[in-house]
Amino acid sequence: MQACNRAIVARMDSPVALIPQLAAHLIAAGGKRLRPLLTLAAAHLCGYPANPAEELAARHVNLAACVEFIHTATLLHDDVVDESHLRRGLASANAVFGNKASVLVGDFLFARSFQLMTEDGSLPVMAILSQASATIAEGEVLQMATQNDLSTSMERYLQVIHGKTAALFAAACRVGAIVADRPRAEEMALDAYGTNLGMAFQLVDDALDYAADQRLLGKTVGDDFREGKITLPVLAAYDAGTEEDRVFWRRVIEESVQEPADLEHALGLIAATDAISITLRHASDYAARAQAALSIFAESEMRGLLGDVAAYTVSRAR
Amino acid sequence: MQACNRAIVARMDSPVALIPQLAAHLIAAGGKRLRPLLTLAAAHLCGYPANPAEELAARHVNLAACVEFIHTATLLHDDVVDESHLRRGLASANAVFGNKASVLVGDFLFARSFQLMTEDGSLPVMAILSQASATIAEGEVLQMATQNDLSTSMERYLQVIHGKTAALFAAACRVGAIVADRPRAEEMALDAYGTNLGMAFQLVDDALDYAADQRLLGKTVGDDFREGKITLPVLAAYDAGTEEDRVFWRRVIEESVQEPADLEHALGLIAATDAISITLRHASDYAARAQAALSIFAESEMRGLLGDVAAYTVSRAR
Repeated sequence: MQACNRAIVARMDSPVALIPQLAAHLIAAGGKRLRPLLTLAAAHLCGYPANPAEELAARHVNLAACVEFIHTATLLHDDVVDESHLRRGLASANAVFGNKASVLVGDFLFARSFQLMTEDGSLPVMAILSQASATIAEGEVLQMATQNDLSTSMERYLQVIHGKTAALFAAACRVGAIVADRPRAEEMALDAYGTNLGMAFQLVDDALDYAADQRLLGKTVGDDFREGKITLPVLAAYDAGTEEDRVFWRRVIEESVQEPADLEHALGLIAATDAISITLRHASDYAARAQAALSIFAESEMRGLLGDVAAYTVSRAR
Repeated sequence: MQACNRAIVARMDSPVALIPQLAAHLIAAGGKRLRPLLTLAAAHLCGYPANPAEELAARHVNLAACVEFIHTATLLHDDVVDESHLRRGLASANAVFGNKASVLVGDFLFARSFQLMTEDGSLPVMAILSQASATIAEGEVLQMATQNDLSTSMERYLQVIHGKTAALFAAACRVGAIVADRPRAEEMALDAYGTNLGMAFQLVDDALDYAADQRLLGKTVGDDFREGKITLPVLAAYDAGTEEDRVFWRRVIEESVQEPADLEHALGLIAATDAISITLRHASDYAARAQAALSIFAESEMRGLLGDVAAYTVSRAR
């Protein structure tokens, strides 16, 4: 990860000063770097690099940086699209540098990610990562189209979170098998692991946004609520609600008419309808599928670790 | 061009309905399709495709579409960044579909352009087009950093227009030599042609934004003025102005304090200081360099045509 972080910092550089400035802001904001970690771990699981001495300069390090660039670019654009002023409790880039800079530096990072892929030189890797980039954009557009719409189906919701989150998780894992030159079955097993992990991850994220006890941990609650985002906790609470509850949900989510006490009321309805448990049960199912996808690989420390990541993704919400 | 237009329409498709809808809006808005035309013409100049029967299905058609996707993505993001509500006299995509959709569909088109490159499968082509994409973003960020700043140097201004315009012109032309598998000298000659043509094109564009007589042709004048963009007409008029003129320029450009009559006054100062002629003289120089760069190629109808494009780029302003 240190080598990957160095690659990230080095390749965010540009003679145009604002680009490294904004990049430094993003790096300072931290973040879990979960996606590049998946690329590194998937490569290791597949026995890459064969010579551990090549670890720091090998292909998976640059591809992990590439995956993080795609993710960071989408974060920058998301914050513009959502008009968010906070990210992980810190001022978001658009709040500090403005929407314009966030759009343009996001574009720069996208372009840089494609340069990193080109330098890697593998057409299958490029096909997977450029397809994932297109799928992310489609997912984000679909999410925008479903915003404020309580008639959104479960299927449509799953399509949104597949696009906006699971597609890049899958691609991040899958390229690990490709650099290791492993058979297609292992490549697709890692794709399935990443897809299911990403679905679980986003479901948990959507649950935590309505988990009142998270506030005790200093986390923000209610961002999705304020934006009128359609997530499973809301769909489940709406589905199980009384007619009076539904009138409430339509006002706050569909008509975006919200008063200060509405979030508390929403949290109450979500608790009363078991909507968080329903969401986390779906997340558990996906996490179990992610673990099952790893069974094609021989037992190893890395396989155990990736399995633990899937388990932890869900347990962090309990 | 018809084959290229078909490729553009086909590859803008997506199961997410808003994407083809917004794409249709962009296609209806027309546009000159100058950049893909350059790719097609450069390939022809280099004798590609060798078999004319392969014309419609050959690589240059898809790469031309790819170039147009990169351009369209930057236009979508530009209009968000500039808060423009008109493009070529029609409502811009952000005005009709909102900023969010423009950001996300722009991202989709970027990703699609990289998918088109990947399908083409040439690493040199990918390196050139992904480098151009990064340079465009750098140019746009630099333009943002120079906005409202009358102390911007000529060198810095040229760097901005190189990034935002000439880099993609150069790449569009250069890939024509690569698909034709021509020697590096021809590749670099087409790069030089495209770079100089792009510089001339942007200088003329910047001149036309202050060319009062363009209004007779129904063109918009003063967009750059209202946005406080730093372009050569303004820099030249500021440079040659009296102290009173400079007070005026600082108010309208640096402080963005503009009154209804200010555009007329600015046009008067630009006329009085010959700023348009200065700008067009620079454009002529670049156009002449573009034409000179073609001399490495044997005389042909296509060489004559590309030379005429350079000449017309400047003559359209006279």
